Amino acid sequence: MKVAILLFDDFETLDVFGPVEILGRLKDYYQISFYSLLGGLINNSHGVSILTKNLDGLKNGGDVFLIPGGTGTRKEVNNGLFIDKIRQISQLSKFVLTVCTGSALLAKTGLLDGKNATSNKRAFNWVMTQGQNVNWIKKARWTIDGKYYTSSGVSAGMDMTLGFLKDVHGIEFAKKAAFDIEYCWNENKDVDGFYEQ
Amino acid sequence: MKVAILLFDDFETLDVFGPVEILGRLKDYYQISFYSLLGGLINNSHGVSILTKNLDGLKNGGDVFLIPGGTGTRKEVNNGLFIDKIRQISQLSKFVLTVCTGSALLAKTGLLDGKNATSNKRAFNWVMTQGQNVNWIKKARWTIDGKYYTSSGVSAGMDMTLGFLKDVHGIEFAKKAAFDIEYCWNENKDVDGFYEQ
Repeated sequence: MKVAILLFDDFETLDVFGPVEILGRLKDYYQISFYSLLGGLINNSHGVSILTKNLDGLKNGGDVFLIPGGTGTRKEVNNGLFIDKIRQISQLSKFVLTVCTGSALLAKTGLLDGKNATSNKRAFNWVMTQGQNVNWIKKARWTIDGKYYTSSGVSAGMDMTLGFLKDVHGIEFAKKAAFDIEYCWNENKDVDGFYEQ
Repeated sequence: MKVAILLFDDFETLDVFGPVEILGRLKDYYQISFYSLLGGLINNSHGVSILTKNLDGLKNGGDVFLIPGGTGTRKEVNNGLFIDKIRQISQLSKFVLTVCTGSALLAKTGLLDGKNATSNKRAFNWVMTQGQNVNWIKKARWTIDGKYYTSSGVSAGMDMTLGFLKDVHGIEFAKKAAFDIEYCWNENKDVDGFYEQ
């Protein structure tokens, strides 16, 4: 499957590279590419600069479309052209995965309306304003609604990616992927130690 | 503190970006830069391309020098110039942290001789051959010996980085850093669920 990772300035580092580590190792199954609205180098505040392709190369969608979060989402939710392209690509993609505040970008497209979704705990109130018809679930390590997977904050993206592998390839495959990177996988999407009432 | 991250082709994605996520968020304390032997773009097999500075800019050492692992270490242990520079920079740095097979590169310099260190479980036998006078500890999430921190495979680098924060800033600081990224920190360096006798 082709995995298309969406980047924008001030994306969150681990939102991207947690899932990239997990899927990138599985070379017989997944091939990773990075995209941004205009292509070229994308930077974040952790000093990371990543070379990307132009999003137009993805206009027919991908097998897996991954949307990270980060402080950059605060600006990008107001970028109409960017949101339009996210809507188009998400509609045409087989699976759409968001990490952290990436769900704000997807919610803004309207595609999550009536669907279950989650996000980063500390940005939750803001994220909810980006999709008032979404069924936001605060207590969740990740959620699944049809082809849409959304995770809570940062590290939860790794747990969600392993959960996605479980759904596609089975539990033993996912467990091996976690074992191979010596990662203690939080297997149950509904157990969320970071939820506070 | 200035954090210098060493890159080389075919570095392991999460070895780098787990610690970068944790330290990069702490902008009042840590400033991240990426270096490689010749500078420029460094690539790995997960499709990641990162822009780096020339290692000569680090000849006086850094506050924190982080050496990741990855399949590229198999080649780089035989790159005498690279190993010489790692030795020089490590000697002059305040702290040296390795993740996964990054400890093979550091062991090759001789600086770990007589010291405790660990590495990735599945590459352990190979890593041991790179430093036959090192006190290799297979059952460890991470080890500390003076200024040298070494972690086991991939994800363990995040636990080690939080352990480093604990040592420098105290336990509550480290716990907050983990909480802020919704990361379930394995706090005890001697508890290692991936060790098999």
